[in-house]
Amino acid sequence: MADEVILLDFWPSGFGVRARIALREKGVEFEYREEILRDKSPLLLQMNPVHKKIPVLIHNGLPVCESMNIVQYIDEVWSDKNPLLPSNPYQRAQARFWVDFIDTKVFEPADKIWSTKGEVQEKAKKEYIEALKILESELGDKPFFGGDIFGFVDISMTGYYMWFEAFEKCGNFSIEPECPTLMASAKRCLQRDSVVKSVPDPEKIVEFAFKIRKIYCV
Amino acid sequence: MADEVILLDFWPSGFGVRARIALREKGVEFEYREEILRDKSPLLLQMNPVHKKIPVLIHNGLPVCESMNIVQYIDEVWSDKNPLLPSNPYQRAQARFWVDFIDTKVFEPADKIWSTKGEVQEKAKKEYIEALKILESELGDKPFFGGDIFGFVDISMTGYYMWFEAFEKCGNFSIEPECPTLMASAKRCLQRDSVVKSVPDPEKIVEFAFKIRKIYCV
Repeated sequence: MADEVILLDFWPSGFGVRARIALREKGVEFEYREEILRDKSPLLLQMNPVHKKIPVLIHNGLPVCESMNIVQYIDEVWSDKNPLLPSNPYQRAQARFWVDFIDTKVFEPADKIWSTKGEVQEKAKKEYIEALKILESELGDKPFFGGDIFGFVDISMTGYYMWFEAFEKCGNFSIEPECPTLMASAKRCLQRDSVVKSVPDPEKIVEFAFKIRKIYCV
Repeated sequence: MADEVILLDFWPSGFGVRARIALREKGVEFEYREEILRDKSPLLLQMNPVHKKIPVLIHNGLPVCESMNIVQYIDEVWSDKNPLLPSNPYQRAQARFWVDFIDTKVFEPADKIWSTKGEVQEKAKKEYIEALKILESELGDKPFFGGDIFGFVDISMTGYYMWFEAFEKCGNFSIEPECPTLMASAKRCLQRDSVVKSVPDPEKIVEFAFKIRKIYCV
């Protein structure tokens, strides 16, 4: 019996896109189902009763929640193609460390850049650039965080790369002069086939960000 | 050559204890080094330059940071004894999901119970019990979150179980009537050999909590 793979997702989500990319890296066919976040489907509420959030991967009826948990699950189930995590335990621990760093130290200020203004936004911009500089230093002269391989950490960051333009426009600042190496890697990631097929048009994300921003920053 | 395993830790830490327990579950001999958090050792700052926090596991000179990342690393390196994560990818994803839940939805209110008072503390107590009830429901009639096995999720919760008495005394409330099944599992976990050897005397944690509380709640 063929696998039934359904992804409950929302198009501008930097979390949802991680699952999309991982599935495409593995060549897994899946049914994409768009959620309306103001009116969540009964299936989403049933499959993720704890957080009630996208993305949710439903594999043969069983739900997996939380974006990087989904990516790791995909890597373990479809282990025969394009490994996303290294096989060496120390390198795996390093990859998980950086993903955790991204989901706390990059996420928190990033979220504030487009949803706040004034001093709070200025502080968030500063923290955001500081976090990106730490990542730039970790990246070093490697093409990807995964070395020569587009891997676990790269997938996690691509959810932010696709929002870079929206952050810059909402915050009126520029990332590239601060983090040129990271930006070069971001461009490399955004050109990958699995990514091109998964990320929305940056202009649409900018438009979406400004629309939501109007609600938050009255 | 024998493995050199060093753990940089701080005795009342619910995060540090996770690493201690995992090492003892695997029968790994290690050197425990107590850190003074107001005056962190040069080794800690060198081994965890990003977060500058304990616990840090140093295995043959290489540092692994973040408590559950350390536990997963230990499980992968010493894979021949007492598996902590299940082998099935779906069950692994479930275990990681619950650990993530614990480290956000249990951690945040727990932290406020002993460091705040008044309305903020009341709200934290409510959120804390709500989170524990979700865990109680997930536990069901299993002896451990790992089923018959003391596993990944149980290790992550033991860091909180050892603080239960301190939370109750700081917050003037009682966990057991709200979550009897979870409490029964907590007692089972706290009786394990690896845990008994790793957790401090609860009275000392209570004393420590009240000492710190005086600084936060002036």
